[in-house]
Amino acid sequence: MKAEVLTVGTELLLGQILDTNSLFLSKKLAEIGIDLYFKTSVGDNVERVQQALSTACLRADVVIITGGLGPTVDDVTRESVAKFAGSTLVTDEKSLRGIEEYFAKRSLRMPENNRKQAKFPDGAIVMENPNGSAPGFILEHGQNILIAMPGVPSEMYPMMEKQVMPYLVRKMGKVPMTIRSRSLRVMGMGESLVDEAIQDLFKNSTNPTIGVYAHDADIEIRLTAKAPDAAKAADMIEKLREKIAERLGANVIGEDDDTIEDAAGRELKRLGFTLSTAESCTAGLVAHTITAVAGSSEYYIGGINSYANRIKNSMLFVPEELLEKYGAVSEECAAAMAAGCNRAFKTDAAISVTGIAGPGGGSAEKPVGLVYIGVDIRGKNGVFKRNFGGSRKAIRNRAAQTALFLLYQQLKDIVK
Amino acid sequence: MKAEVLTVGTELLLGQILDTNSLFLSKKLAEIGIDLYFKTSVGDNVERVQQALSTACLRADVVIITGGLGPTVDDVTRESVAKFAGSTLVTDEKSLRGIEEYFAKRSLRMPENNRKQAKFPDGAIVMENPNGSAPGFILEHGQNILIAMPGVPSEMYPMMEKQVMPYLVRKMGKVPMTIRSRSLRVMGMGESLVDEAIQDLFKNSTNPTIGVYAHDADIEIRLTAKAPDAAKAADMIEKLREKIAERLGANVIGEDDDTIEDAAGRELKRLGFTLSTAESCTAGLVAHTITAVAGSSEYYIGGINSYANRIKNSMLFVPEELLEKYGAVSEECAAAMAAGCNRAFKTDAAISVTGIAGPGGGSAEKPVGLVYIGVDIRGKNGVFKRNFGGSRKAIRNRAAQTALFLLYQQLKDIVK
Repeated sequence: MKAEVLTVGTELLLGQILDTNSLFLSKKLAEIGIDLYFKTSVGDNVERVQQALSTACLRADVVIITGGLGPTVDDVTRESVAKFAGSTLVTDEKSLRGIEEYFAKRSLRMPENNRKQAKFPDGAIVMENPNGSAPGFILEHGQNILIAMPGVPSEMYPMMEKQVMPYLVRKMGKVPMTIRSRSLRVMGMGESLVDEAIQDLFKNSTNPTIGVYAHDADIEIRLTAKAPDAAKAADMIEKLREKIAERLGANVIGEDDDTIEDAAGRELKRLGFTLSTAESCTAGLVAHTITAVAGSSEYYIGGINSYANRIKNSMLFVPEELLEKYGAVSEECAAAMAAGCNRAFKTDAAISVTGIAGPGGGSAEKPVGLVYIGVDIRGKNGVFKRNFGGSRKAIRNRAAQTALFLLYQQLKDIVK
Repeated sequence: MKAEVLTVGTELLLGQILDTNSLFLSKKLAEIGIDLYFKTSVGDNVERVQQALSTACLRADVVIITGGLGPTVDDVTRESVAKFAGSTLVTDEKSLRGIEEYFAKRSLRMPENNRKQAKFPDGAIVMENPNGSAPGFILEHGQNILIAMPGVPSEMYPMMEKQVMPYLVRKMGKVPMTIRSRSLRVMGMGESLVDEAIQDLFKNSTNPTIGVYAHDADIEIRLTAKAPDAAKAADMIEKLREKIAERLGANVIGEDDDTIEDAAGRELKRLGFTLSTAESCTAGLVAHTITAVAGSSEYYIGGINSYANRIKNSMLFVPEELLEKYGAVSEECAAAMAAGCNRAFKTDAAISVTGIAGPGGGSAEKPVGLVYIGVDIRGKNGVFKRNFGGSRKAIRNRAAQTALFLLYQQLKDIVK
């Protein structure tokens, strides 16, 4: 079976939303052996959604539609599917009560336009939505299966897992092939270099396949294997993973959804070290990132966002003379901030970041993108100089990610 | 003329990348009167890219392809377009020298696989890429125009503006219709309520059109007008904008790309107030967000991420007795943190956030998602209690956005 994902919504066509749904859907479809080859986005227009459904039905067996099930006038999925399938919209009384209950539970008045969400193409299987007001539906149409779900991840994910997947597995009779994927995450080297280092494995491997993807924060090497069962697929991946991990060594920071904050956190836990942060240009991003890990309160104590110079002095003990002589964006200041941070928070390890995020404030000597990162671990103090490119946002993100990578590398060298 | 955007790359199909390109492309196409109706994503597969090109050529005049121009084995755009158009790939010597220079300038060795990037379908117009190693190209094929550009925004944006747009305008002879869009950004009310409040304007307006889009942080009401010239379109939008702004009043925080940090920053500047932050569960996100605005150092002094309770006490002057009696997640603690923050940083305004971001740490009395937000402005202290839903990430994001919205509302009431 082949699937196509069709996302409905002008806002998606305009690309303003981070599409995490497709990743989730492709993983879930792979688990039951269904290939996803195309993804189409179309605006809130009944005619064009019909046209997209028609194209999708020619190249896929299953069309998974997300979005356009909301209560507003420009939510057109129900109507479009009905028209495409030559069906009419009928109200499902059970769904209507469900929607009414959804609002009642939250002590909210139900706006009149939410009634629309209880209408479905005649003959559709209605899927309950305990997490929102928009139920989904499945409509079998000739050789095709049309599945419509809400676009909101917290509503769509459980609907896919609990209702759509069991339906599809039943429909197929059995799971034909299992696809398993596993990724290595790499930092500190570019896409071309990673590619060159493992290119020969690429060329000679069709199963597992290898994909190299550059993300903002890291490079992902994804290994995907097809096999009759999960254990066999996992085994095929593991053999290749070992080869790649050996070649890339200390640049591998983790696997699958691992992030550098996971990796750094693991090292802190292994050593039983506490951490604090002193941030100027990133102003809290390193702190926010390290605490994205649940349970990070075990090692993260706190941080100071020392945006104004007087705060670097009063709270992080950076001498006024140092600030005057070298400036806030300097190796000396980064070193003093990291050391002062450990002192202020009574921690084992501290990260400091000071730089010029732009767009203003740069000079020939200290251009926009210049960032000093300090790492102080029990008095062992190192400062790293970087020149990051891109927007203010990109510079701040790269600085925070690099700071955590540097911390990780320093910690990794320490034998407990 | 109608356009379709085709993004090439398995990583895009899997939705792991925030697609900002499509927003940019749709705006730029609108500027020269070209409608964008479909967006298709397809993996790194020569056959399926050809299939997608074939579909796109049937429903659009111009197909804008982004991505798949990189140096690696799985970059297949050049080959796919050539095969689709029945053309062969030939090396463009000028481009090859350009790529060599790109690496030489950066003192980098050029990996052998980058040579591939100088090959184009025979007959294509090559577009230089001064910002990266992948040149783009335009291929006229029958009634269609195929345009391939790199997927990296910093390379694609200037190529679109300086090379593709002038080409398209020349091709069309003239610009037929101008499309202008303008958005209102709304916080503090849900999509349904916004919809209900302006629904009658919706129904009776086909030009301008009104779109209501729920984002993570706010609701966007986008007004789009078509007119023979830009001034007329702008005027049509302005009339409708005034009506909507009047109805939604203080919930409108800004326009177009405005964010709540822009709005709060403007109020701080208007009053000449300084700001500091004291964050527990958001650990730096409020600070990082407010400083996303260039020039925020004018009002933002600094912040303390008081993750551990001992830091709330030692740095923010929250009495130990208070922490023992009410706990860190309490109205009392939020009030004390905000007041203590203004004291520590000698600022006019302070925001405090303390809550349970989960997934662990919740109880019946204090569930995951419970967040107290304190706003202290020159001693006038208010605490707001919220129950946010969703993941750890969602709860932290909502808490930070809400904190800035509450600050904005409090500041807005102050007459200078």
